[in-house]
Amino acid sequence: MNNLNLKKHISGQFNTELEEVVNQVLVMGGLVEQQLIDAISAIHTQDLDLARLIVTKDQQVNLLEVDIDEDCTRIIAKRQPAASDLRLVLAIIKTITDLERIGDVAKRIGMMVIDNANKKQPPLVSMENMGLRTVKMLHEVLDAFARMDVVAAIEVHKEDAKVDREYESIIRELMTFMMEDPRSIPQVLNVLWCARSLERVGDRVQNIAEYIIYFVKGKDVRHRSDEDIYTLLDS
Amino acid sequence: MNNLNLKKHISGQFNTELEEVVNQVLVMGGLVEQQLIDAISAIHTQDLDLARLIVTKDQQVNLLEVDIDEDCTRIIAKRQPAASDLRLVLAIIKTITDLERIGDVAKRIGMMVIDNANKKQPPLVSMENMGLRTVKMLHEVLDAFARMDVVAAIEVHKEDAKVDREYESIIRELMTFMMEDPRSIPQVLNVLWCARSLERVGDRVQNIAEYIIYFVKGKDVRHRSDEDIYTLLDS
Repeated sequence: MNNLNLKKHISGQFNTELEEVVNQVLVMGGLVEQQLIDAISAIHTQDLDLARLIVTKDQQVNLLEVDIDEDCTRIIAKRQPAASDLRLVLAIIKTITDLERIGDVAKRIGMMVIDNANKKQPPLVSMENMGLRTVKMLHEVLDAFARMDVVAAIEVHKEDAKVDREYESIIRELMTFMMEDPRSIPQVLNVLWCARSLERVGDRVQNIAEYIIYFVKGKDVRHRSDEDIYTLLDS
Repeated sequence: MNNLNLKKHISGQFNTELEEVVNQVLVMGGLVEQQLIDAISAIHTQDLDLARLIVTKDQQVNLLEVDIDEDCTRIIAKRQPAASDLRLVLAIIKTITDLERIGDVAKRIGMMVIDNANKKQPPLVSMENMGLRTVKMLHEVLDAFARMDVVAAIEVHKEDAKVDREYESIIRELMTFMMEDPRSIPQVLNVLWCARSLERVGDRVQNIAEYIIYFVKGKDVRHRSDEDIYTLLDS
């Protein structure tokens, strides 16, 4: 299901501009996804060079956000889009904010790996698993974005409940670890912040899924219950 | 210094629409500010009724975000604003996202007060102080927004460094408390999440200050160093 429907404009130039900005979002999404993959890999391998690289590369993500935002503003000013074109541009402006914040999570994990190097490590396997799930969610929502596919967006939206459950279990695991070895508290807190940030990646992927729904269905479903959102499929 | 400059439109109706949406942002800002004040008061008084009220009222904040967002979209579609009008509308769309998230922080604090009721409390005075500073920052940035005052926006932007220092000190205080009494870890973590959220309020106030700069100066200063931003005053 491809709902982008960019062929309909009389102005071929306008088509090109919209297509280009959508492509830029996908480039930014791909970069953020790679940052997140690298961050989770760095948790596992404790590769400090990789961790430092992630921290440095975050600036690329930031610059892409500013560039795409500028492109969107220019399109609105020049093309005066209405209806679904306007919804697309506004959805993009919001999507890149969430992508940028997911980039920040990768950077934070990189910094945690650097800070915690050569110290006693708390258990990290569950966090890696949760991290891999959020990477999968991000990949799927970017796919859904590329095709403006509401069904796929809703599927990935539902996945977040699993991230929340994994997160609760990680918190319990890390609390037990701290109670048994209070000297480890500073390192464990560092890990806890990252676990919480990763849990928030799931929420941000949900946000992007909601912008896709907004674009295709013309309905703002933010702050609605999951059930409300999922019944949209039937309408 | 009033930079809103809404008198210049030929269409009186367009003026009214822009003024109304700016007023709505200030209404939303006032509500969020009150929620934050109440939340910090609830930390101090341990007033569970107040805490529950804050949690319930968060939905009002959410609805305002969706309403204002809709108004902005309608204005873009109908009035096809350009230049500073367009920047104003885009600055509003972003501002309300940050205001809504500050509302979430108040809600989270309310939930923490409820969760931690009748349990041994970690030290909370420093967190109240940091909370009061973020309230002051929020108040000042809303004032700056009402007048689109770049000088005031930069002043409040600078304040965040103090929040960051207070936050670091709170974390050290709470870590010490946990190490001395590991059984308190679950409650302290609850407080730590809130401290971290409050620290993020400072960042969100900085974002709003940056949107004011964007509107007035036409420059996107996100992800720039503080020094870069502050030299803008001279340009």
